Order: sequence, then structure tokens, then C-alpha cells
Amino acid sequence: MNAVVMAGGSGTRFWPASRKDLPKQFLNITGRAPMLVETCERLSPLVPYEQMIIVLGKNHEDLAKELLSQRQIHIIAEPMARNTAPCIGLGALYAQYLGCDTAVAFLPADHFIRDQEAFLEALRIAGRVAQKGGIVTLGIVPTRPETGYGYIRRVDTHEDGKDKRVYRVSAFVEKPDFETAKEYLTDGGYFWNAGIFVATPQTILAEIRACMPGLSEGLSRLRGTIGTDDFPNALKEVYEGLESISFDYGVMEKTKGDVYVVPCDCGWSDVGSWSSLYELRSSEYDSANNLVEGEALVIDCRNSFISSRNGRVVAVLGLERCLVVDTEDSLLVADLDRAQDVRKIVEALRKSGKERLL
Amino acid sequence: MNAVVMAGGSGTRFWPASRKDLPKQFLNITGRAPMLVETCERLSPLVPYEQMIIVLGKNHEDLAKELLSQRQIHIIAEPMARNTAPCIGLGALYAQYLGCDTAVAFLPADHFIRDQEAFLEALRIAGRVAQKGGIVTLGIVPTRPETGYGYIRRVDTHEDGKDKRVYRVSAFVEKPDFETAKEYLTDGGYFWNAGIFVATPQTILAEIRACMPGLSEGLSRLRGTIGTDDFPNALKEVYEGLESISFDYGVMEKTKGDVYVVPCDCGWSDVGSWSSLYELRSSEYDSANNLVEGEALVIDCRNSFISSRNGRVVAVLGLERCLVVDTEDSLLVADLDRAQDVRKIVEALRKSGKERLL
Repeated sequence: MNAVVMAGGSGTRFWPASRKDLPKQFLNITGRAPMLVETCERLSPLVPYEQMIIVLGKNHEDLAKELLSQRQIHIIAEPMARNTAPCIGLGALYAQYLGCDTAVAFLPADHFIRDQEAFLEALRIAGRVAQKGGIVTLGIVPTRPETGYGYIRRVDTHEDGKDKRVYRVSAFVEKPDFETAKEYLTDGGYFWNAGIFVATPQTILAEIRACMPGLSEGLSRLRGTIGTDDFPNALKEVYEGLESISFDYGVMEKTKGDVYVVPCDCGWSDVGSWSSLYELRSSEYDSANNLVEGEALVIDCRNSFISSRNGRVVAVLGLERCLVVDTEDSLLVADLDRAQDVRKIVEALRKSGKERLL
Repeated sequence: MNAVVMAGGSGTRFWPASRKDLPKQFLNITGRAPMLVETCERLSPLVPYEQMIIVLGKNHEDLAKELLSQRQIHIIAEPMARNTAPCIGLGALYAQYLGCDTAVAFLPADHFIRDQEAFLEALRIAGRVAQKGGIVTLGIVPTRPETGYGYIRRVDTHEDGKDKRVYRVSAFVEKPDFETAKEYLTDGGYFWNAGIFVATPQTILAEIRACMPGLSEGLSRLRGTIGTDDFPNALKEVYEGLESISFDYGVMEKTKGDVYVVPCDCGWSDVGSWSSLYELRSSEYDSANNLVEGEALVIDCRNSFISSRNGRVVAVLGLERCLVVDTEDSLLVADLDRAQDVRKIVEALRKSGKERLL
């Protein structure tokens, strides 16, 4: 199997730890290594490093090369961000250039997965199905009535064949309200859409040709330049003219081809905010459910997340559900339940001319 | 009138802004100057600078001289802290040495007073009474059922004479519980004990002779050395043998002499914690009752105190009754209503060998 790891995100939701130059996928926030490195290592039993392709932003190319220097991973630098549809198209094109005509897993670089074996097993099944044509998505088995994700609805009966875990997709569903999310949770036929797709390069490029002719034309112009000195300039010219659009919206919601889902219960999280990071690191809590990173003096606090990333002493007293992130040049103190609004701070800093802190 | 300003405190309740080398009386936390400077300036319409005596700790002598360099104030450095009884005795002795045989005001250097005129008027009255003998205390008219202060109970009838605002003291009362404090508030005969005394040096020294013979003997040994090169060594020898004890406990609660109280409604606060500082600076609140010092980005916060003393950007989001104090080497985040427990943090830092942060 091959893999295209999408590392182009520029998320702001982990400010002040994440910055323009150091977005979430380059941070070590969930374990022992930056998320991009963990993503590649997690795949490595199934996908040899030399069959991995990382697509990322030009300004992060050097950092990624440094982090992954011991591994023969291919890195493509996008000249500008154009969301996932161009990224997946470019990855498919590059996989073909590498001689791949089997299944490729397309997946984000900044997700957390607790159960590697369950994840790889789902990818293996998806790969076998994708080999015969169609696009296979991983459907994360929901564990709570989450309103922040899109959902995938499966049909009632599984596909014939030896893999009893494969279903056709009945619909991609927008983020639900809470009541609807509770119904999805008990229904059993709905899964979280993690944005993980498996398909052959040929299938991806054919679907793009059918659904996104503009992108398809651009990719055709690039095909002959890969591996030549012309590639960077050609990529820049093509990307400048591309629409910024997600693969979900540009292809998955429009395709008339075969679309499958493989349910996967692997302890997945998109780690979308400080509070979701706090939740998934519950094994590290102290006796009062505080998560403490770095040097901190914690007195009479509960259910709080204290991150001292600056070597300074952080003293916290009498807090509940509080988030404290101390970095060299910035400090965030927030209600942990308002963590999704950290972007408001980033916006306000941008508006007040404090780009240097972003 | 003369004055003895007691600046020997080493309070820890304003950590991390206050430090061993920079206790509260040297901090500018309530206005435009360090509290010691404000205290001297506040007195200056009544007491010429050259009739003020500051008693402080040896390690703060240079700092005080620098802060007050333009003024001819006398400074006595105590070789070690021995609480207020030795401090007041030493101040009285020094005032005598300066030729003073009229009333002296003995008062702490780290109190806040909103209404200077009301305060000075009370001191003037106290001075006139003290001239005739006895010790006169200022009694702060209570404005809330405060359980953190000792109280002074007056007798029912005021003294004859032209000052209708002078009463004999009936009792000094320990810190009350909340119910009792509410009764004191409505009674009208109880005042907060601010630790401000007015008396002639002769009266003070006579009372010490009667109530604290050990201290009196020590002071006698010092009398001849003031103004000579022997004074620092003599002071050290005497202080080493002195008991550490407050003037309230050592003299006021034991004396058989005349004790008076002059009620004073002057917007007084001992500024005993970050939360009391927050309360008394209410004129600086933003529209959501936040008090913000320095550069801070405040989003959806209420009733909070944010102090950025480090030039760094502090971003706060969704907080209520929260205290954030950011300094160069330490950060405090606390429930504002737990501000009195900041000393717990100081204790914990001391125990864990982090003296450098104190």
C-alpha cells in the first residue's frame, strides 16, 4: 500500500503553542513525537517509508525534512494552500509517477489514533476493496453525540465478499445538532467522517476528471513536469489558478462512482482543540483530573490543563476547568470549555497588528 | 507633628509581584508610586519630611534611600525583623534623639488611603489629644462585615473638650466571625484596628517600660549610641536578644494608661491581598468589571484581575473571578477569591527549594 499524508494545515486552535511556522501537525502534543512523525510511524507496518508521500506547505518543507531525515519519505511542497481536493489530486498524480497502481491511503497528518492495530486493519480491508475500484472511506465508530464532525451514513447490508466490514455509503451528512447526533449515536449506521480515503491513483484521478474538470486540467499540465526542474514553477502556476476546495465537497458529495465505508473503532480524535487534547490524554491526569505539562505548582485545582512550555514556574491555585498555556512570548488563560474560541484570540491579535505572535 | 513610618514588612501575599527584595511597601500597586513613597507624601502636609523616620529592614535600606532621595527623611535599618513593638520603641527613641517632645504618628508604610484630607484631619485631632498624654489610635469606620481585621470598641460617650470625635477605648477585639462582624458593623461603636498610633515619645517609652521591661532595657542601651558609629553594632546586639512581638499585643492590650480612639472614615485598606487590591481599584474597571494592567487581550471575561508585568501578551478567554499575574520568571493563575492562599504557593516554593523565585 502507498500513502499520501496531508500536512498542509495551518490551524490556529492550539495557539499559543501552535504558530504559523509550527502548526499542530509539527507539534508534539499527544505523545512522544510531532504528530506528523507519529502519523508516518503509525502507517509504517503497512506502508514502507519510501512509499509515503507528504504534501505540505512550502514554509514547512525544511522542518519536515529535518523531522523525518532518517526516512526515505517523498515530500511535495504546495506553493499555497488550496484545501484537500488539489492536495489529494497531486498526491495521486505523484503516486502514479512513483509507479503505484495499487491502493493509496489519503489521510491527515494531525490526527490522534489510540489503537494502531485496529486502524491498520481497517486500512488493509479498505485497500483490498479499493483495489477493485471505488473510493473507500474509514468511518469512525462514534463514542459520543458529537456535533463538531460530519457523519457518513452506511446502507443496511454489508457487501458480499470475505470482508464483512465493508458497506456502501448511503450519504455524507453535515454536522448535526445535538439531538440528531444522539440519534446517530444509537442508530449504529452513522460514522464520523475523519477525512481518510483509500483508492487507487487511477480512481482518484478519474473521479477528479468527472467532478472537478478545472483541477483535472491543472493536474494534466503537471504530469509531465514531476521529477524535472520545471515542476516547482509549473506547480506554482497551476496552484495559483485552482479553487480552494475540500475533497469531500469537490468529489465525494458529487461522485456517481462506488463509495464504500469501513467502520473503524480505533480511539480516533482529530484533536481539534485544547479541550479535546485534554480529554484524550486522560491517562496522564493527576488525582484531581488535572493534566500538567512542564513545571507547575498546582494547588486545589480540578479538571484543568496546565502547560508550561517556557521553563518558567507556573503556579495555579483554586482553579476548575481552566486552561493555562505558557510559552516564551505569549500566555493563554482560558475556560477549558471555551477552547474552541481560541481562534477569536488569534483573530484579535491579527487585527491588532501582533502577527509576530501568530 | 513627627511620624515613624514602619516599612519592615516582608509580606508574601502579593507574590509573584512582591519578592523578598521587593515587598509590598516598595511596589507601586495602588497608584502612581511605591506605597512607601505614597505614605510619606500623604503625610507631608502635616509632617515635614525632615521630621519623618522610616524604620525598615537592612536589605531594603538602599532601595528606600533611592526612592526618597529628594527628601530629607531619616531612615533606620533594623538588622532583623522583630515585629512592631521594637520598631515603635526604636522610632520613639530616635524621635527623642531628634529633639521631638510632641506627638508622633506611628503608622505602616503599606496601607492605602483614598481620602487624604479625612486621614490628616483625624491625625491632627489625635495629635492634639496625645499632646496631653495617653496613646491615641485611629479607628477606621467599617464599611463591610470584615472578618480579617481586629476591632477597637469605643466607650459610649465622647471625651469632653473641643474634639467631639475622641473616645476612650473600651476594648481591643480579636478578629470576629462573620455574624459578629455584622453586629459590629451595625453597632457603630466598633472600628477596624489599622495599627496606627499617635503618642509622644515619652508616653511610648513609658508604656514600654511598664509593659515590656525587656524591650525597655534594650532601648536604654541604645539611647547613647544613636548618631554615633557604635549605633549599628549596638542595634544588632540588642535586636538579637529581643522578642518578636507586636505593639498591639505587647503594649496596647496590657497598658493601664489612657487609650483613645479617633474614628476615621478615609477609604482605608491594608491591601492585604490581590483581591483587596482588585476591590479598591474599582474606578479602573472595564465595562465587565475587569481590572487590566499591562498588555492583555481580554475576551468574554468578567470580574477578573489581569496583571501583565512582563511586557508579554497575556490572552484571557471566558474567565470569571480569575487572577492572572505574569512576571518575568513566574506566573500566577488563581481564583480571585482564593487570593489569601497565595502564601500557600510561597510556602510550597520555599519547601521545594525555589527560594530564587521568592
